[in-house]
Amino acid sequence: MQDRKIRMGMVGGGEGAFIGNVHRMAANLDGQIELVCGAFSANPDKSQRSGRALFLQTERCYASYQEMFEKEQALPDEQKMDIVSIVTPNHLHFDVAKMALEHGFHVICDKPATFTLAEAKALKDIIATSGRLYGLTHTYNGYPLVKQAKQMVANGELGKVVKVVAQYSQGWLSASSDTDNKQAAWRLDPKQAGISCCMGDIGVHAANLMEYISGQHITELCSDLTPTVSGRQLDDDGTVIVKFNEGAKGVLTSSQISVGEENGLAINIYGENASLTWRQEEPNSLWLKYNDKPTQMIRTGVGEFCNEALAATRTPAGHPEGYLEAFANLYTRFAEQVRAYPNILKDKAPIPGIEEAIRGMAFIENAVKASDSDIKWHKFTI
Amino acid sequence: MQDRKIRMGMVGGGEGAFIGNVHRMAANLDGQIELVCGAFSANPDKSQRSGRALFLQTERCYASYQEMFEKEQALPDEQKMDIVSIVTPNHLHFDVAKMALEHGFHVICDKPATFTLAEAKALKDIIATSGRLYGLTHTYNGYPLVKQAKQMVANGELGKVVKVVAQYSQGWLSASSDTDNKQAAWRLDPKQAGISCCMGDIGVHAANLMEYISGQHITELCSDLTPTVSGRQLDDDGTVIVKFNEGAKGVLTSSQISVGEENGLAINIYGENASLTWRQEEPNSLWLKYNDKPTQMIRTGVGEFCNEALAATRTPAGHPEGYLEAFANLYTRFAEQVRAYPNILKDKAPIPGIEEAIRGMAFIENAVKASDSDIKWHKFTI
Amino acid sequence: MQDRKIRMGMVGGGEGAFIGNVHRMAANLDGQIELVCGAFSANPDKSQRSGRALFLQTERCYASYQEMFEKEQALPDEQKMDIVSIVTPNHLHFDVAKMALEHGFHVICDKPATFTLAEAKALKDIIATSGRLYGLTHTYNGYPLVKQAKQMVANGELGKVVKVVAQYSQGWLSASSDTDNKQAAWRLDPKQAGISCCMGDIGVHAANLMEYISGQHITELCSDLTPTVSGRQLDDDGTVIVKFNEGAKGVLTSSQISVGEENGLAINIYGENASLTWRQEEPNSLWLKYNDKPTQMIRTGVGEFCNEALAATRTPAGHPEGYLEAFANLYTRFAEQVRAYPNILKDKAPIPGIEEAIRGMAFIENAVKASDSDIKWHKFTI
Amino acid sequence: MQDRKIRMGMVGGGEGAFIGNVHRMAANLDGQIELVCGAFSANPDKSQRSGRALFLQTERCYASYQEMFEKEQALPDEQKMDIVSIVTPNHLHFDVAKMALEHGFHVICDKPATFTLAEAKALKDIIATSGRLYGLTHTYNGYPLVKQAKQMVANGELGKVVKVVAQYSQGWLSASSDTDNKQAAWRLDPKQAGISCCMGDIGVHAANLMEYISGQHITELCSDLTPTVSGRQLDDDGTVIVKFNEGAKGVLTSSQISVGEENGLAINIYGENASLTWRQEEPNSLWLKYNDKPTQMIRTGVGEFCNEALAATRTPAGHPEGYLEAFANLYTRFAEQVRAYPNILKDKAPIPGIEEAIRGMAFIENAVKASDSDIKWHKFTI
Repeated sequence: MQDRKIRMGMVGGGEGAFIGNVHRMAANLDGQIELVCGAFSANPDKSQRSGRALFLQTERCYASYQEMFEKEQALPDEQKMDIVSIVTPNHLHFDVAKMALEHGFHVICDKPATFTLAEAKALKDIIATSGRLYGLTHTYNGYPLVKQAKQMVANGELGKVVKVVAQYSQGWLSASSDTDNKQAAWRLDPKQAGISCCMGDIGVHAANLMEYISGQHITELCSDLTPTVSGRQLDDDGTVIVKFNEGAKGVLTSSQISVGEENGLAINIYGENASLTWRQEEPNSLWLKYNDKPTQMIRTGVGEFCNEALAATRTPAGHPEGYLEAFANLYTRFAEQVRAYPNILKDKAPIPGIEEAIRGMAFIENAVKASDSDIKWHKFTI
Repeated sequence: MQDRKIRMGMVGGGEGAFIGNVHRMAANLDGQIELVCGAFSANPDKSQRSGRALFLQTERCYASYQEMFEKEQALPDEQKMDIVSIVTPNHLHFDVAKMALEHGFHVICDKPATFTLAEAKALKDIIATSGRLYGLTHTYNGYPLVKQAKQMVANGELGKVVKVVAQYSQGWLSASSDTDNKQAAWRLDPKQAGISCCMGDIGVHAANLMEYISGQHITELCSDLTPTVSGRQLDDDGTVIVKFNEGAKGVLTSSQISVGEENGLAINIYGENASLTWRQEEPNSLWLKYNDKPTQMIRTGVGEFCNEALAATRTPAGHPEGYLEAFANLYTRFAEQVRAYPNILKDKAPIPGIEEAIRGMAFIENAVKASDSDIKWHKFTI
Repeated sequence: MQDRKIRMGMVGGGEGAFIGNVHRMAANLDGQIELVCGAFSANPDKSQRSGRALFLQTERCYASYQEMFEKEQALPDEQKMDIVSIVTPNHLHFDVAKMALEHGFHVICDKPATFTLAEAKALKDIIATSGRLYGLTHTYNGYPLVKQAKQMVANGELGKVVKVVAQYSQGWLSASSDTDNKQAAWRLDPKQAGISCCMGDIGVHAANLMEYISGQHITELCSDLTPTVSGRQLDDDGTVIVKFNEGAKGVLTSSQISVGEENGLAINIYGENASLTWRQEEPNSLWLKYNDKPTQMIRTGVGEFCNEALAATRTPAGHPEGYLEAFANLYTRFAEQVRAYPNILKDKAPIPGIEEAIRGMAFIENAVKASDSDIKWHKFTI
Repeated sequence: MQDRKIRMGMVGGGEGAFIGNVHRMAANLDGQIELVCGAFSANPDKSQRSGRALFLQTERCYASYQEMFEKEQALPDEQKMDIVSIVTPNHLHFDVAKMALEHGFHVICDKPATFTLAEAKALKDIIATSGRLYGLTHTYNGYPLVKQAKQMVANGELGKVVKVVAQYSQGWLSASSDTDNKQAAWRLDPKQAGISCCMGDIGVHAANLMEYISGQHITELCSDLTPTVSGRQLDDDGTVIVKFNEGAKGVLTSSQISVGEENGLAINIYGENASLTWRQEEPNSLWLKYNDKPTQMIRTGVGEFCNEALAATRTPAGHPEGYLEAFANLYTRFAEQVRAYPNILKDKAPIPGIEEAIRGMAFIENAVKASDSDIKWHKFTI
C-alpha cells in the first residue's frame, strides 16, 4: 500500500451533519486518505445526494451501511475501501463498528465509542477477534502541545503530580438558547445520547485529557450532575472530584449551560515542582509555571519538542494550527498504521483506541451512578 | 470631624509583618486617615521600634493593646484615636476587637474576623452594644469591577444566575517550597490558624466573592479538603460544591499547593442570558459574555459605571489600579462612615462587616465538617 | 464540472520545500480540488520522487513545467488538469504563469506574483489575453475576521478611517540565528528574492492588509529599510510611513530580525468613532474598541457576520481555525470560480489577483526607492 | 531628619485638577511624606478651599507660590517644608522650580520639566547653583519591571540591542471625543502646552523609556507629526524613526486620536539573542523572548530581581501594583535622597532629573523641527 492513498468509506455524515464534515476535512488535509464511498444516511436518497455532492461515484453512495460493507467487501483489492469512518449518532456506533470489523475493515470512530460501557467491553473482544485496527477520535489529544505536555509529565519535569484541574464549558445548551435544533435535540434525548448529556458529550473529553496527560488513572470519584434547565432528563452541567491511582486529586467541571463559553476545554496539571496549563481555544501556547522562576510560555514550533509533538506540527511557529489540524493528526497517524498493517509501527504511539473507549464509557457510567448517590465517594469500576 | 484626618491606632503589624504594612499603605493612600499610635507587637521594645520607624511619637508606641486602649481613651478629644486597625494573627482578633469596641473605638479588622464562628457570633452582640462601627477587610470586593459586577447581576443583566464558579489558587505552600517562614508557619498551625489553612486563609475570600456578586447565599455544600503535603494537620487544598438559596449551583476550588499560581482568585457568574468573568490578577478587565453576540471587555474607567465602582476608581482608564487601591477603597469608605458617625451615610454601601464575618467563619466550619463526612451534601448552618 | 473535483497541477514544491506542502494542504482541506500532476523540481528525478510520494501516477510527474503544460494540454478533457498552482522561487513566477495561461490553464500563484513590477504589469495583459482566471495567495485576507473587519470598515462602523498601523515581525533572520538554511538563503539573495528581503517577503503582506481592510490606497510613503545584520545586501527590517488616498495616515513596521517574534502580523485601524485590532497569531479574535463604551471581542462564529466571513468558517465557535484554513479559503473560493467558469460568480468576491499583485510589487519597489532617498516623502507610483 | 516625615508643599493641583491628586496619592502611599502646605491655585479662594479639603491649616494654604516660598522659608526648621511638588500647567514649571530652588527647597516636578529646551538648560544651572535636589516624575520608569528590563539589557541578556519599538497611544483626543474639557484644552493650546501636544504630552514618555531601558541615546531622527483633527494647531499623532548612538534603530509611534486606546504605552527591545516586551497597561508581566526556546513571562515578585526592582515592589506576586505605585516609587526614592541630604545615597539610583528633562525637551523640539522638514534624517541636537 506504499503507492496509493488509504481508501475510506463513511457511515453517517450526510447533508446537514456537523461532525461528518469535520472528519472528512481531517481525513483530507494531509493527502493520505481518499474518500471512496459512504452510507451517509439511513435515507437512501439523502445518502446518494450527499455522496454525489462529495464527488463520489453513484454506485458507491450506498443506501445502508450493511449494503456498503457487503458490496465493498466484494470489490477487487485495487478498489475496495480500507477503513470505515463512523460518524453516526452514538447509539449506532457499536453495530456499525462491529459489522465493519467483521467484514474486514479497519475502523475509526467518533467519540463516544458506544452507547454503553457493556457495548464498549463487547467491542474490545470483537476487535481482538477481527485482528483489525480500531481508532477513537479523542480530538484533543491530537494537539501537539498536549502531546508535549504528556511527555513533560512523563519525563518528571513537574515532579510528582498532586493535582489535576480540568474544565470543559460550553454555553450553547443554556436556557436562553435555541435548543430546538438537531444538534441539541439528540444530545438531550436519552434514547439517542444515553444516560448523560454533558458528561457524555464533553466531560468525557476532559476526563480523557486528565488521564492522558497525567499518566494516572481515576480510581474514585465524587460526582454532582445537574439538569439545570427545567424539564431536561439529562445533565447539562456537572462537577466531578476525583482521586488518581498515584495519589493525585482532581476536579473536573463540565457545563453546556455556561452562557458565553464557546468550547472551553482547559487543563492544569500541578506537580510538586512545576505546573502546566493548556487551553484548547488558544492551543498553541503551553504554560509551564514555577513558584520561584519565570513562567515559560511554550509555543508550538519554538524550541525543542518530543517526536509526537513534532509529527503533529505542519507549519513554522506563528502560523496557528487548530482543531482541524488536531483532528487530522488522528487520521494521519491512523493512516500510517493502516499502511503498515499487519505490521505495527512500534516507534509511533497509536491513536486512542478501545482502551480509551472503555475508560470513557466507564467514566460516564460511574459519574452518573455516583451523582445519584448520597454517599460522597465511589470506587471507579469498569 | 470635617476638618481633620481620621486618627488611627494599629494593633499588630510590627517589624517583619506583611499585612500590617498593607493596611497602613491602604489607610495612607487617599490622605483621609492618619496613623497616630500603635501596639505593634507583644514585645514592648519591638512595638516601640516599629512605631518610631513609622515616625510616631514615642509615647504613643504602646507596650500592649490594653495599654493603648486605656491611654488613648483618656486623651483629650482633639488628640485621641478614632479607629483601631487590627492586623494581629487570627487568634487574637476577637479579644482585641472586643476591648477596642468597649473602649469606644471603631474597629476595622483583617480577615478572618475571629478564630471561631462562636466568637464571630459573640462579636456581633458586642458591636451592637457598643454602637460603634465595625469593618472587615475583605479586600477583593474593594475592586471597582467587582462592585460593577455585583450591580450588573442585581440589575438583571445576566438573567437568573444558575452557576457560579470560583477559584483561588496559590502555590507557595507546595511541597517544594520553603515553608519554614513565619507566614507559612502560623497558617499551618491549628493553634494559630484555627481548623483550616487553605479554606480559612483564602477559600473564604472566594466564598465571600461568590455571595457578594451573585447576591445569593450558600445553603448546602459538599466539601473535600486535603492536606496534600504529608505531615500537615490542616488542608492546603480543597473543592467545595455548593447550592445557593435561589437555585444556582457553584463550585469553589482553592489551593495553596498549586505550584506557579500567584494569587489566582477568579470568578465566573453564569446567568441564563449572559455571564461575567473577573480575575484578580488582571483586575481592570471584566468580561461580559453572550452566546450570540460579541464578548464585552469592560475596562475600569471606560464607559458607564455604578456609583460604587466610580467611587472606587482614582485614575483614568489605562492607569492600572490594583490590590493596594482595592484595599484603600475599604479604608476610605470606612473613614467616610466614621466621619459621618453617629450618622449613617445611607447612600453609600458600608464595607463588609460582622454579617460577612459570621458567614465567613460559618463557611470555614461548614466546609471542614462536611469534608470530614462520608455523606455528600450538608446544610450550611450558622 | 458540477460532478467532479477541480484538477490541479503544481509547479515547484518538491521534496524539502515548505510552501508547496502548505498549498497542497490548503487545496486538500475542503475536498474540492484534486492534485493530479506536477513538475515539482527542475531535477526530473526529484520531481518524479516528489510526485510519487504524493501518490501521483508516474507519467504525470513531469520533468519540467514546460513538459507538463504541453502534455496536459494534449490530454482529453476528462483527464487534463484545470488549474496550475505555482510555488517556485519568486524569480520563476512570471515565466511559469505566462506559459500556463497561454496553454489555457487557470493559475493560482504564491506571493509575490512576480520578480519585478514590470513583470506584474506584463502579466496583467497576458491574463487578459488568455481569458483565464488568476489568483494570488495573499493568505492573510483568507481569515474570516479579516473579511469581517473589511466589511465593518466599509459599513462605516468605525467612522472615517484616520490611522492604520500594521506590524509584521519575525525573528528568524536575526544575527544569532542559523541562516544557512535554504529558506533563508534565497530570501537574502538578490538574484532569487529581488530588490528586497523583508519588505518583499512579509512587509508586502502587511501593506496588502492595510489597503484591503481600510479600503484606501497608499499614495505617498516615507521609507527606511535596513540590512541590520552586517554583510547583507537586502533589508531585513524596515519602517514605512504612508499616506492614503482618503486622508488617513499609516505606519508599517516589518522585521525579520526581531528575535522572539514568530509570525507577528497585526493591524490596527482607527476611525473617528471606533477602532479595530486583529492579530494573525490569535486570528479568531477581532477587537472593536471605543472611547466611551466597552471593547467588543468579536470571536469567530459568535454572533452575526458578513457572508464572506461565514463562508470562511467551517466549525462552531471555540474550535480554532488558523493559517491553513485561511489558506484553504483562498483555494476553495478559487475552485468555486473555476467551477463556474466561464461564468463569474458575481455574488462572491474573487480572491486577490493581478491588481493586488501589481500593487504589491509597486509597494516593494516604491519602498526601496524611497528608502534610498534623502527626501522624506515620495509619491507611490505604479 | 531620621525621625519625621519629609514635609511637602505643592504648587498647583487645586480643585478639579487631575495630576495634582495623583502626586498626592503617590506621596502618601508609603508614609514617608507629609503634605504641609500648598499654593493650589492662582485664585486665592480656590487655593484656600483646596487646601482645607486636604486638612491643611488655613495659614498654610497660600495665595500664590511666591507667598508660599517666602513664608515657608521664614518658618522655623521644625515646621517648614522640605520639598516642593510642582503640578501646574507646563508653562509655569520653570518659574516655580527656579524660585523654589532659590529659596532653598528641593523640587520634584511633573513632566515635562519646562516649556522649552532653553528653559530646561537654564534650569540645570539653577539647580547646580542651588545645591538642591531636583526630580522629574517620569512615572513609567518607576515600575519594577521597567527597572528589571533596564538591568537585563545592561547585563547583556539580550546581546547587542539592534531595534527598539515603542508605542504610546491614547484615544481621548479623537475627533469624536468631547475635547471641550479643561484637560484637553490646555494640551491643544500652544500657549500653554508649547510646540507639541502629542509628542510633548506622551511621546516624550516613550522616548524616555526607549533610552532608559536600552541604555542608548537617540542621535538622529526622521519625524512625521500630524494634527489629525482639522483645526488643530498642534500634533495629535506622530511617528518618529530614530537611530541610537550604539547602532540600534527605533520606531516611536504616539497618538492621542487612536480611538479605544486607553494609556497604551508599550515597548519592545530586540537584541541579537533575545528580546523584551513590556506593556504599561499590564505592568506586572515582562516578556523575554527567544527564537529557539520558550518565552519567559517574568512576573513581578516571582523569581530573582535586581535591587531597584525589589525596592519598587511592595506586595507578593499576584497582588497587582500599578500606576500609583510606580508613581509612589518616584516619590519614595526622592524622599530617601532628601532624608540623606546633603549626603548622596550612592547605592541607590536617583530618580529622573535635569538630564532627562533636557533630553525630553530636546526630543520634543527635534521631533517638531524634523517633522517640518522635507529632509528625511536630522541630527538630534541639544
